[in-house]
Amino acid sequence: MHKRRYLILAPYAFAEAKTAHGVIRYGRDDTVAVIDPQFAGRRVCDVLAYLESPAPVVSDVRGGMQFGPTALLVGTAPKGGKLPVQWREQILQAINAKLEIVSGLHDMLGDDPEFAAAARAAGVAIRDVRKPPDVPLFSGDVYGVKPPVLLAVGNDCAVGKMTVMLELARAAAAAGARAEFAPTGQTGIMIAGWGIAVDRVVADFTTGAAEQIVLEAARRQPEYILVEGQGSINHPAYAPVTLALMYGAAPDALLLVVDPKRSRIEGYDAPTMGYRELVAAHESIAARVKPARVAGVALNTFGLSDDEARTQIARARAETGVPAGDAVRFGARALWDAIVPALRKTQPLAAAAAV
Amino acid sequence: MHKRRYLILAPYAFAEAKTAHGVIRYGRDDTVAVIDPQFAGRRVCDVLAYLESPAPVVSDVRGGMQFGPTALLVGTAPKGGKLPVQWREQILQAINAKLEIVSGLHDMLGDDPEFAAAARAAGVAIRDVRKPPDVPLFSGDVYGVKPPVLLAVGNDCAVGKMTVMLELARAAAAAGARAEFAPTGQTGIMIAGWGIAVDRVVADFTTGAAEQIVLEAARRQPEYILVEGQGSINHPAYAPVTLALMYGAAPDALLLVVDPKRSRIEGYDAPTMGYRELVAAHESIAARVKPARVAGVALNTFGLSDDEARTQIARARAETGVPAGDAVRFGARALWDAIVPALRKTQPLAAAAAV
Repeated sequence: MHKRRYLILAPYAFAEAKTAHGVIRYGRDDTVAVIDPQFAGRRVCDVLAYLESPAPVVSDVRGGMQFGPTALLVGTAPKGGKLPVQWREQILQAINAKLEIVSGLHDMLGDDPEFAAAARAAGVAIRDVRKPPDVPLFSGDVYGVKPPVLLAVGNDCAVGKMTVMLELARAAAAAGARAEFAPTGQTGIMIAGWGIAVDRVVADFTTGAAEQIVLEAARRQPEYILVEGQGSINHPAYAPVTLALMYGAAPDALLLVVDPKRSRIEGYDAPTMGYRELVAAHESIAARVKPARVAGVALNTFGLSDDEARTQIARARAETGVPAGDAVRFGARALWDAIVPALRKTQPLAAAAAV
Repeated sequence: MHKRRYLILAPYAFAEAKTAHGVIRYGRDDTVAVIDPQFAGRRVCDVLAYLESPAPVVSDVRGGMQFGPTALLVGTAPKGGKLPVQWREQILQAINAKLEIVSGLHDMLGDDPEFAAAARAAGVAIRDVRKPPDVPLFSGDVYGVKPPVLLAVGNDCAVGKMTVMLELARAAAAAGARAEFAPTGQTGIMIAGWGIAVDRVVADFTTGAAEQIVLEAARRQPEYILVEGQGSINHPAYAPVTLALMYGAAPDALLLVVDPKRSRIEGYDAPTMGYRELVAAHESIAARVKPARVAGVALNTFGLSDDEARTQIARARAETGVPAGDAVRFGARALWDAIVPALRKTQPLAAAAAV
């Protein structure tokens, strides 16, 4: 499959640009350079060691062209909304240099008249990854998918559900198994090169979108399908997207991804759930359509000491009765090996016989 | 408030046109005539006695104009999708006769170049009620709403959730209380003249849309708010919309609307839930964000004998421990009087203190 060679646009924003970090660390495409005048002249690994990338940081599109990019990736907008004029100029320069534009912004760059006209003139595509395709309503075809489907669910948004699934896919490969990461959000889509941003789909079609993602993953004939999670089932604003994945992706098993330091839902005066409640809530909801048990707990212990992390992991194991670990701190292989035996197909509930 | 005078377009479709029936029976606007050549010359009440309307049925827009309509209502499309050419002609005639167009079709009439141009030329508006407005993300402002909020939830789609809430609003008025019906779907919007079709909102904004509906209902300063329900919490395709209402509308109490004859989710090989499971599922989900108890059960006993209906109602009462009745068969007043004591404000869960 053709790989893109990304020039990543993140002026004065690279240190915080999580989409860019995800693409550099996990992406199927290569990153050949990053634009951020603040760090120009250094390498990505000098700025953020854990990304382990020697790609150069440059000041602008012009400076990046010598590294042979085929696409400009616009992963993050600066805070506070609209695209600043300097970014616009850089994007136009990239289009004129015949780079494909791949954007994860809320604003659709392809709908911008200036960008659209320039892209037409240059003969390049603008790919807004958040723009969902037309999808059919949920059909139940997903119930016929052969590989076991594991869905990540969490105690909040932004606790590391995507990262854990990507690490598990790598661990599976190291263990000799083909596990397909199935993207449900913009960064996941940029990393894997396919997928649907379920949170941007019209409500009635969200379960259908989740189903299509799993069907597409199955076409790649993996042994396991690892579905990126979204939101949290008790999130006051985003729970409907979580439920759309639970019913539409029709998982056979669930992976709880928990940040144990998070006592409230980010941005809301609402409590997160404890382990026992998380297990009971998800398993009871799944049981009403297609049973799925919690197969393991992946903790996000960022900021804790190794000793504190081990204590938290032991607590998770004790409270849930399933394997637990931190896939980032201690490696994903042990967690993968521990949950694999629980990845077995389940059947949806059949309707009762007519009365 | 200005009332519309509707001419309803339903050629060869009026007998099955549920949106039209709802508008005639419950609408704030008046229906002055219905277009259906099949029944031309009769009155609405000759075709469907329970609608109790003497409005004439006519063959076409021309025939309807003598009754002084101000708007054409396009409530239902014939099965199988696209607008047939005869309907297009009728709609264009109505636009040229300076009637406002109110449509609940999936296809947006305002986006049709021919209709849009004609409407501009005639100076009339096309109102696609399914087209959602831009809404903000869920904010939690709904938690400050003063009147108790009752949300209808059901054992499936199309069991009568909207009808029950409209009947209860009438019963409340008869009992001297102001209960505001809050519409969340296309027919409800046409009946009440406001609201948002939550199933057409982008997933991330569905809870925000539900919140805005309740805030708007509260601005009308009622004593109670009755939120139209959508879908069912174990519906394989539409459960996310149901959950969006449960979290976004932030109800203080729930009304279970149950068709006891329904053993499977319509269109899916999936079982409906029994009474105890319905109560447990909804109350446990609500309890994770803002507690709401089931205040009563409204049964849809259509097709049963009076004796069978009474047996079903007694069973619902026994299995749930709350008041039960059939608001259509036996009148809504008894059910309203029985549930009112349970309509009291609840508070959302507060975040735990920082660790």
